[in-house]
Parts: sequence; structure tokens; C-alpha cells
Amino acid sequence: IQSKQPDTGTTIFTVMSKLAGDYGALNLSQGFPSFNCSEKLTDLVAFYLKKGMNQYAPMAGIQPLREIISQKTFELYGVNYHPDSEITIVSGATEALYAAVTTIVHEGDEVILLEPCYDSYTPAITLNGGIPVYITLSPENAYKIDWELVKSKISEKTRLIMLNTPHNPTGTVMSREDLNQLAEIVKDTDIFIIGDEVYEHIIFDEHEHWSLLRNPVLKERSFICNSFGKTFHVTGWKVGYCLAPKQLTEEFRKVHQWLTFSTVTPIQYALADFLKDPDNYLSIPKFYQDKRDKFLDCIKGSRFSYTPAQGSFFQCLNYQNITNENDFNLAVRLTKEIGVASIPVSVFYHQKNDFKILRFCFAKDDETLEKAGEQLLKL
Amino acid sequence: IQSKQPDTGTTIFTVMSKLAGDYGALNLSQGFPSFNCSEKLTDLVAFYLKKGMNQYAPMAGIQPLREIISQKTFELYGVNYHPDSEITIVSGATEALYAAVTTIVHEGDEVILLEPCYDSYTPAITLNGGIPVYITLSPENAYKIDWELVKSKISEKTRLIMLNTPHNPTGTVMSREDLNQLAEIVKDTDIFIIGDEVYEHIIFDEHEHWSLLRNPVLKERSFICNSFGKTFHVTGWKVGYCLAPKQLTEEFRKVHQWLTFSTVTPIQYALADFLKDPDNYLSIPKFYQDKRDKFLDCIKGSRFSYTPAQGSFFQCLNYQNITNENDFNLAVRLTKEIGVASIPVSVFYHQKNDFKILRFCFAKDDETLEKAGEQLLKL
Ligand SMILES: CSCCC(=O)C(=O)O
Ligand SMILES: CSCCC(=O)C(=O)O
Repeated sequence: IQSKQPDTGTTIFTVMSKLAGDYGALNLSQGFPSFNCSEKLTDLVAFYLKKGMNQYAPMAGIQPLREIISQKTFELYGVNYHPDSEITIVSGATEALYAAVTTIVHEGDEVILLEPCYDSYTPAITLNGGIPVYITLSPENAYKIDWELVKSKISEKTRLIMLNTPHNPTGTVMSREDLNQLAEIVKDTDIFIIGDEVYEHIIFDEHEHWSLLRNPVLKERSFICNSFGKTFHVTGWKVGYCLAPKQLTEEFRKVHQWLTFSTVTPIQYALADFLKDPDNYLSIPKFYQDKRDKFLDCIKGSRFSYTPAQGSFFQCLNYQNITNENDFNLAVRLTKEIGVASIPVSVFYHQKNDFKILRFCFAKDDETLEKAGEQLLKL
Repeated sequence: IQSKQPDTGTTIFTVMSKLAGDYGALNLSQGFPSFNCSEKLTDLVAFYLKKGMNQYAPMAGIQPLREIISQKTFELYGVNYHPDSEITIVSGATEALYAAVTTIVHEGDEVILLEPCYDSYTPAITLNGGIPVYITLSPENAYKIDWELVKSKISEKTRLIMLNTPHNPTGTVMSREDLNQLAEIVKDTDIFIIGDEVYEHIIFDEHEHWSLLRNPVLKERSFICNSFGKTFHVTGWKVGYCLAPKQLTEEFRKVHQWLTFSTVTPIQYALADFLKDPDNYLSIPKFYQDKRDKFLDCIKGSRFSYTPAQGSFFQCLNYQNITNENDFNLAVRLTKEIGVASIPVSVFYHQKNDFKILRFCFAKDDETLEKAGEQLLKL
């Protein structure tokens, strides 16, 4: 069989989680919490299961969930998305990203990606016949986006730019000024934008979530991909959504309906109810900031260097003061010998640039963070 | 925005279900049960929700579910699929079909489809740059497949044949002899096969499910797509699976991991447990045969003509003795005036061939079937 992508292999998340399991290591690699979600939420799902909400949801998602998302988006950002025609519920942000790419990218189209980036972006593009055009962000200047460089990469074939804020793996966030500069670049083009904003509610200190939808020039050409997995500690539920203006949503749904058609019904009803209490998501920034601080506290005294994450549930640690090993080897060795699994950041670059950085997920109970800290101090 | 598929529009299932809702009609259109699933099953999901099985499942699905599927497949058909390398859990059969098509179909490849066929097949092909080549099966010869005709449609560009048994919408099933003839045609080619077998356990009278995997020549080149939605009355749970030989599964997973990555975890655990009692699926044929018989009983005395469904939960009724209207119009009129929604079979043909047939879903409680029968007698 002649595969379309002979080289993608198994995701690093599967590899490292398995290695962690095999060696009984603390798993700070794949991004998921070690704790359960709110009991209110599981009670709600159980309620709707019993009630018999177990048949196909509408293709675009159930009405109450689309409505509460619309309301929440308006309350948080003062921006309107119509629940009927501009919001679509899908099977996780991964599907949202894949469907949005499939909607836009034709054979031969170019897509601008800022690296490091999440590992599903490139395959989504190439499986649709598109050509990724990479811009490398580096830790040396704090992953700041050079918008002049972005502009210089735009060609006649550029159809799409993919962005992620708060950012996985670096923990950085985009600023209002970033949005303005991007708007300046795309405003007279027919370039579309995909915003991956799954860490929307995981943002710290003085930082603010500058969703692409807050800039009107960007909003009109953007697919904002989001999900509930990260916000509500349920990465295994696979319910996400896509916000996009009417015309884009129409096209997006034409793809979504053939990809998965619809998304698990009882969970949609439960989430719609759960979202009615804003405290359920407004409490999340503090919750995760405490986790980040706990983790940083636990590694105090180590020789890692770092900038505290501004958002997401990942903390990157630079180890160049400790060893010169490549990051993949070190991640494997830490898992086997020191009992802590992480993700080598080189996997987020198509050329595997090795800046001597490992990514640690701090969405873990305090005991795990404490033990991980203790172990990491041994390095 | 320049869409890749300007003409696909909204699925007929969404259209008719909405119309049924708007007019308060009995909804025998979209294929889903009007009754809830087993309480055992919802109890199991609730159990795993509370237990905290709410984070990412492995990309290929949880081990216990893959194992029990392997065991069940062996017990039913004496055929082996290794749980580690030949079974993948996905987000419903729709995703299984889309992922399998994406795995195989490159720009310009031809795919043979037997019409009438399910409405996601063509878009899955065209979104991947493939070209559908249609063969029309007609009610006049009981939708029998003319394998000589299939053979004659094969060209150098043919990469794939898509098949469905038990068949939606016609309710027919393939025979052992069909499998032999197909095997004869493909055995010295590099043509792959996708088998859509979601009605595996909904099969009646003396009929037997001739899964493609029962023919060794076919098995080695087939992606068998299945799901639990139809079997266990949970069409809204969106958990399906794909059986394929090791090499094909490897390629299939490379696509699946970028489409949705993984599938809702607590439901996977619940299904794995539920499948341990074979009675939970072995009881299904009789359950649905009773439903079919009930429906046929309820329309006794009408002027519809029909062949009883051999499988699936759909009964096709031919109305040419009653009216000459086109089937779409009649389906709309029956919904509005007589209060029974159905699906016009022309929508399953790309040229909308109108054989004066409507499809009725009999996965409904007896009261609904009785009322529908009464109403239909008025026609
Ligand atoms: C889909 S598994 C990867 C989870 C995740 O978002 C991450 O670890 O970066
Ligand atoms: C995915 S909605 C369609 C359900 C179904 O299988 C049918 O009605 O044919």
C-alpha cells in the first residue's frame, strides 16, 4: 500500500506515555490532567444518559450548547457568533483543525505555520494536498513572532495561516499588538486563518487571552478552534467546537458532516448545563496558575533555566546548563532513569531543531508534582 | 470562499428530521431508535465517568475494547484480527469510512460505488481528490449486483471499491457467492475494499451476514468499518471501529490520529464490558426482526408493494401503485399531511434516480409503528 504519508509515524505523545507506563515513570509528557473532572459534570452526563439522550445529535451540535457558547463568547469578548450559523460542535479540537484545513486547502495551496507547533498541523495540510511553509520561532528571543518575516513568506499560493494561543508547547501568548500586525498583513488578501485556542482559560499573571476573534479583520476570515477537554479536565471526551463567520461555517459544516457527522450527545447536553455557571471556567486560570507555581516551586534549586509559562498547562525547561544531550535522548533517559516523562520540544519543529528544552505538563495532582520535582533535582 | 464541494448541501437526514420536528410528524426518516439503550450500558458509562476514565484514550482505542472485538470477530466468523495491530477504535463509522478513504485515495484515483449508497461515500472520495465511478443497482432486479458490470468498470486508475452489507437503504444483504465473485475480480489487482457493515447484527429470516472478512482474498485488502451505534441503540455515542490487516491498519491509524486522534474514553470502557455478554448482541436479530414484522403488519392493507428487508433497520416501500409523484415530493407531503416522515430513496443515487420508493426506519417503539401504519393506510 502506497501511503500518502509514509513518514508521520506514531505521535510523540503516544510514544512517551507508553514509555512512562513501561518504566513506571511520572507522566508529565502527554497533556492531560491526573485528576478527575467536577462531579457535577459527571452527574450531568449520567443524568442525560438515563434520560435517553443517546441518539444522533444534530450535525452542527445541540442547540443549547451552541447557544451557551455564543453567550459566553459575547460575555467574555463582546463578540457575536450566531448559534445557528456560526458555531459548530465537533469531535474535539483535532477534528476542528482537520475540518477547517480540509475546508480551505486545495492541492498545491501553501499554509504558513509558526514553529514550534502542535504535531497535527502538518499532516492535516499534507493529507489535503497542501504545502506547509515554516517560520521558526526560537527561545532565544522568547518565541516572539517576527511579523515582517511572516509577511515575506506570503506568496500567491498562500491560502492559510495557522496560529495557536495560548501556545503549546512554549506557554507563550499572543498580544493585542500581534493581532494588529497580523491584521495589517492579511487585510487586503484572501488568506484565511485558523486559530487553535484550546488553552483559552489557562492563562496566568497579568496576561490576557487575545483571541483572534477580538480583531474584526481577523474574525471575518478565521476559524477559531476550541474544545472543552483542557478547560474541564476531560481530554478524553473529545467535544470541541469551531467559531467562524456564516459563510465559512457553511463550508466547514459541509466537511464536518462527512468526517464524523455529529458528536456524542449526552456529553453535549451535560456541557451545555455546566457552562451555565461561569464560575466553572472563570475559576480555571487561578487553579492552573497555582499548579504552575507549585511545579516551579518543586524544581527550585535545579539547574534548569526557564521563563514561567504565560498560559497552557505546559512548562518548558531549558537544560543546556546541565547536559549537552539531544532533547529526545534526554527525555527518554529521564523517563527510564529518573522516573519523569516529558516531551522533547524538537518534535514540534519539522527539522527537529534542538534548543535543549523539555516540556513538562503540570496538570497533575500536587503529590505528583512534588515527586517529579524531587526526581528532577537529581539531574 | 471557494469551497471544494459547493454542491453537497445539508444531508437529507438533517432535512427530514427537521421537517418531522416542525410538523410534529412521526420520524421514520433518519436511522435511529426511538427507545433508549440497555440500562446496564448507561450504568457502565456512569461507573467509568465516576471512576475518572475521562482522559485521552490511546490513539488506537483502549486495549480491552480492541481485545473483546477481536474475540467476538473470531467467535462469530472464525477469523483473526490482532487487537494490537489490526483493530482501531474511531469516532463512529462515518470517521472509519472517511479515514479509510483518505488512507487509500490519492488525487485522480477512481473508486467504484454501487448505488444506491449512503450519502457520505461520494463526498469522502471527492474531498480526497478521488473520482467516484457509479454502478446503478435497481429494484427491478432486487438490487442484485451484476459482477460482470463491476468488472467492466475497473480501469487502471481504480484503487478502491466500497460496499455495504446489510444494506442501507435497500435492506438487502450480500451472499457468499457475491463475495466469491468479487474476490475473483480483485484477486490479481491492487484494488482495496471498504466494507461498511454497521448493520452486522440486524439481519433476518434465513439470512446470514457475509462479512467481507469471511473471504480470505477480500480480507487481506479490506477495511471493515463498523460501529456500536446501531447494534446497541446508541447512535449518538459515535464509537466505531475499523478492522484491517496489519499493514493497512498502520496506514489507517496515521490518518485517524490526525482526524480525531482518539475516541470518548468512558464509553469505550463501558462497551468493552458490555460486549463480554454475547447475549447483548446475539439478541439483536430477533429484536429487530420483530420490529420489521410489526411494521409490515401495521401497513397491511395498504397499496404499497415491497420485499421484506433482509437486514438493516430500514424497510423500503414502493408506491408506484398509489401515485406518480416524485419521491422527494411525496416524502415531504407525507410528513406534512399524513404525519409520517421517511427518506426518498432517490437521494442515494447521484443522478437522483426515482424508482418511486420511500425508506422507513422501523427502529421505533411499537406505538409509533402502529400510529405510523394507521396514518400510512390513509394514502
Ligand atoms: C492528543 S495527545 C496530545 C495532547 C496534547 O495536547 C499535548 O500533549 O500537547
Ligand atoms: C448520520 S444520520 C443518518 C443515519 C443513517 O444511518 C440513516 O438514516 O441512513
